[in-house]
Amino acid sequence: MSPKESPDNPYSIQPDTLAMKDKAAKEGLETVWDRFQAQQPQCGFCELGLSCRICVMGPCRIDPFQEGPQRGVCGADADIVVARNLARMVAAGAASHSDHGRDLVETLLAVAEGKAPGYQLTDLAKLDRIAGEFGVAADLPPLAKAKELALALMEEFGIKKGYLGFTRRLPRARLEKWRKLGIEPRGIDWEISEMLHRTHMGVDNDPVNILLQALRAGLSDGWGGSMIATEVSDILFGTPKPAASQVNLGVLKTDEVNIILHGHNPLVSEMVVRAAQDPGLVNRAKELGASGINLAGLCCTGNEVLMRQGIPMAGNHLLQELAILTGAVEAMVVDYQCIMPSLGDLASCYHTLFFTTSAKAKFPKATALSFAPETGEALGRQIVAQAVENFVRRRPERVFIPVAPVAQVTGFSVEVIQEALGGTWEPLLDAIKAGHLRGAAGVVGCNNPRVVQDYGHTNLTQKLIAADILVLDTGCAAVAHAKAGLKVPEAADQAGPGLKAVCQALKIPPVLHMGSCVDNTRIVNLAAILANALGVDLDMLPVAAAAPEWYSEKAAAIACYAVASGVFTVLGVAPPVLGSKTVTDLLLNGLEAHLGAKFAVEPDPFQAARLIINHVEGKRRALGLDAR
Amino acid sequence: MSPKESPDNPYSIQPDTLAMKDKAAKEGLETVWDRFQAQQPQCGFCELGLSCRICVMGPCRIDPFQEGPQRGVCGADADIVVARNLARMVAAGAASHSDHGRDLVETLLAVAEGKAPGYQLTDLAKLDRIAGEFGVAADLPPLAKAKELALALMEEFGIKKGYLGFTRRLPRARLEKWRKLGIEPRGIDWEISEMLHRTHMGVDNDPVNILLQALRAGLSDGWGGSMIATEVSDILFGTPKPAASQVNLGVLKTDEVNIILHGHNPLVSEMVVRAAQDPGLVNRAKELGASGINLAGLCCTGNEVLMRQGIPMAGNHLLQELAILTGAVEAMVVDYQCIMPSLGDLASCYHTLFFTTSAKAKFPKATALSFAPETGEALGRQIVAQAVENFVRRRPERVFIPVAPVAQVTGFSVEVIQEALGGTWEPLLDAIKAGHLRGAAGVVGCNNPRVVQDYGHTNLTQKLIAADILVLDTGCAAVAHAKAGLKVPEAADQAGPGLKAVCQALKIPPVLHMGSCVDNTRIVNLAAILANALGVDLDMLPVAAAAPEWYSEKAAAIACYAVASGVFTVLGVAPPVLGSKTVTDLLLNGLEAHLGAKFAVEPDPFQAARLIINHVEGKRRALGLDAR
Repeated sequence: MSPKESPDNPYSIQPDTLAMKDKAAKEGLETVWDRFQAQQPQCGFCELGLSCRICVMGPCRIDPFQEGPQRGVCGADADIVVARNLARMVAAGAASHSDHGRDLVETLLAVAEGKAPGYQLTDLAKLDRIAGEFGVAADLPPLAKAKELALALMEEFGIKKGYLGFTRRLPRARLEKWRKLGIEPRGIDWEISEMLHRTHMGVDNDPVNILLQALRAGLSDGWGGSMIATEVSDILFGTPKPAASQVNLGVLKTDEVNIILHGHNPLVSEMVVRAAQDPGLVNRAKELGASGINLAGLCCTGNEVLMRQGIPMAGNHLLQELAILTGAVEAMVVDYQCIMPSLGDLASCYHTLFFTTSAKAKFPKATALSFAPETGEALGRQIVAQAVENFVRRRPERVFIPVAPVAQVTGFSVEVIQEALGGTWEPLLDAIKAGHLRGAAGVVGCNNPRVVQDYGHTNLTQKLIAADILVLDTGCAAVAHAKAGLKVPEAADQAGPGLKAVCQALKIPPVLHMGSCVDNTRIVNLAAILANALGVDLDMLPVAAAAPEWYSEKAAAIACYAVASGVFTVLGVAPPVLGSKTVTDLLLNGLEAHLGAKFAVEPDPFQAARLIINHVEGKRRALGLDAR
Repeated sequence: MSPKESPDNPYSIQPDTLAMKDKAAKEGLETVWDRFQAQQPQCGFCELGLSCRICVMGPCRIDPFQEGPQRGVCGADADIVVARNLARMVAAGAASHSDHGRDLVETLLAVAEGKAPGYQLTDLAKLDRIAGEFGVAADLPPLAKAKELALALMEEFGIKKGYLGFTRRLPRARLEKWRKLGIEPRGIDWEISEMLHRTHMGVDNDPVNILLQALRAGLSDGWGGSMIATEVSDILFGTPKPAASQVNLGVLKTDEVNIILHGHNPLVSEMVVRAAQDPGLVNRAKELGASGINLAGLCCTGNEVLMRQGIPMAGNHLLQELAILTGAVEAMVVDYQCIMPSLGDLASCYHTLFFTTSAKAKFPKATALSFAPETGEALGRQIVAQAVENFVRRRPERVFIPVAPVAQVTGFSVEVIQEALGGTWEPLLDAIKAGHLRGAAGVVGCNNPRVVQDYGHTNLTQKLIAADILVLDTGCAAVAHAKAGLKVPEAADQAGPGLKAVCQALKIPPVLHMGSCVDNTRIVNLAAILANALGVDLDMLPVAAAAPEWYSEKAAAIACYAVASGVFTVLGVAPPVLGSKTVTDLLLNGLEAHLGAKFAVEPDPFQAARLIINHVEGKRRALGLDAR
């Protein structure tokens, strides 16, 4: 697939998406694009961030044309209203990742206490390392060590200790910048709760002060909840290693029981993966006429099991409805986050079983099962068994799998990259210093029907690798890149000569898959490692980030911790802040003097690529390296 | 003041408010009613709870007339959208009280560690009791005990322990109801954070499940954050005792330096109270031509210093702008919550200094000072000193204090009520059993420009006491009742014969002031004590609650913990839920089978009184007591 300066249609660049959209239309089934269309025109006040529902003296609206009211009932002006609304988005995003991390920590504790049959400590070396970071005695046996670590990580959510433990990974200069601004993250839930308090009516009414706390809440995600989720998932299920796999709706099999794993948390999906290998269940599938049991991932649960178990990836965010429309899905298994409540309706139009697995996330027309560490293994078996029995209800005449799968190689944890480099960061740093590799960019984030699906991700990334910038990806962006064939070593041919040579030497793709959206912490963690190795702060590195098609509050939190960590971040969709010049200016300009990084908003991926290339070259120049 | 079946104007029943509104109009100054008017018509989607801004695929709107879209872009219907919006209101309210409680606990720890000069342990008996509740060794000296208690209370905010400690005050039957519903509150910030997670796009999409977690977040406020705030404030500053004081704008003095204490947290205001008694500062005031230094409260900071120090009360929520308009205020000192961002503009139109005292709450045109336990005492002195020096800038020709103050008696903590009853609850229970006292009602909450100021509170309360129902009040409602003359023993004449006799025997008013809005925990705590004494669950008591003029997210959280604790609660303003029949039905009906309590919405205070009287009599009947 080669870059195109403009998309062919307003929906997607992906053949599977377009084919399934046609099928939906023929069958009279509604998808996200139909609902997006039906919502047009969307409320301009809300889009600009100028509506306020924070108290019932309101709702209030600030007139962006300055003809109507310029203040809400309480007296809040556009700047205050916009800042509060954005801050609450960030708090909710941070809370989501935090709660995800909490579930992992609770399971780690249950494993340590022998209460989680089927779960185990898989990466003992990582257990040792992380336990060491949190001051757990090195000589404890693994289970005892895991228990102490779980209890120490629980303290990260509370208010008794100082600043978050993982922030010690950062250069001192970064922590000093945070201290000056008063945004060193304390307890994870504390920052979230304080953010909500500060945006209550009549509390914080200074847009700058509000946004600083929003950055802090974001940091409690990136160096707290999300990082805990990543590291504990690695301890429990193994740190990812490179594996060959496939992507797009073509990973579904016409002759097998297809089970889709969707959501964000690996706790249930790992048990489904295990159960799907059970000879008894496989045989039962064969008795019922299937050739086997086929698992496929969606969104970030998909990324979790892809990174660690090589499970193929059916698609990203906007594919979740379309996957059901293939008619080939025996069970859609979801945990939480980014799951469209429309899935139950669609599943009921097919034979698809729709299982929810978290008591925190129930859905219309779903079968609600409830994960607990004690019963997770049994839950995995139950799901696979029911999916297998459901195979006989599949109606072959309704099955339509529109494309053949595309190959991908994934599993690039920080540990794997270091290993590929021979155990030291020097070769990577040397390649950057020599200019073969100009720098690196994280291209991450969601899909959003405002953007032609995967157009933003794919074009931006192709431009970046052509400019010798290594791309690290996660989440839905990673799925887009894989579908475009960018995640195989042969894609090095699309890279510039320097990056191509590096890829060929290391036998890696020019776009490295680092995981799910909580795994954006792998990217900032790598940035911290490189900064420490170079003896500079993160904002001096020739690196950047982009979220070309983001849609969720979690993405807002991620963007905040990226920028607060010193990484220039380009958003492809404007957040709802344009109603306030103060807030917009602060995000686009004002932060840089204090954090060495800022946001940009650029919907066009080619322009976004230029911004990032210029940024990377500028940072090279500032480091005294050659710059183009 | 006698009840009137309809108000004379759409603004207020209070002469001071009306007079100051006229002054504002004459001087061309904008007040909350002007802004409320300018916002008309308010957005119908937002008022009904039918707009969603939870992700940037939106904003979305559900058409209440079922002609336009019935689902958001993600597929969420009206029930999901409304439930999520309400749940976030409750989470933000709980977070606000929680963060307030956290500030008290941090100061308690600082006091225990000798780092908070000027602060001390004032109520050692309460320290002993609360420390005992949290398992702190009884034989520790006070400071060591305070330290252990502070650390134990910090655990209440975290995730390591089981359920909130104060819930042990409740009858087992209540805890059992919560357990069945899965709403026993765990860590305070945990519940808030999980509520945000569950309302992220694609997480909880079951309105019942969402609302159950909202109740849980509310409980983490009532039996967590707010209760901690109340109890620790009592330990630090003394448990309230009855004191005679005054209320309304007439408490401001033409010949003294007037300092208004506004907000919710006593940490700074207690130090201002102390500094205002400093002979050096009083003498300086006299040197500058003032007769002395006069403190007055506003909103709940006002209630805090009124309850413990007898500081007169200038007014409730809608008076905050008008107080400045008297031209007699040398300094307006605010901490946080419910402070209108318009105050800075108004203060700058007069000589008034506008001091903010929390780093979490900055305001336009304010002088930002920042409280810390280490410097709180000095901060109090600094504020008073600057206010005194500002007296010379007052322009006497602009001073207008429109009314004479009204007397009130306040300070009815649970401890005081028990003491007044001779140390045992039997006389109160006997009065209820005999039917002299039919029951009790908490009339609490804010002001809201949607309601004629104080019309809801005052008329409801007058009807209730006339029906021999004892009224317990807090917050802005308490100020309304005081202005109506209902908080002096002589007001017993307005009570029915049974309540009148009880009041006369105990020399108490028929309306007992129990404090600020965090002190609603005193009311539920009293209900728990009475339920335990009678051996019944709280929902069997002849008690009810009302918030006739609520406006804030905190009020939504309070209402949730009241109902979840078993107390029938009548709201005078509809929450933004009417766009969902499911959510509305659940609140008005569905909860009762599980919690023994429910909400009602009734804007007319006379109808609300009838609802409460019928409820109380019904509960009497169910208990086998005489019923009217």
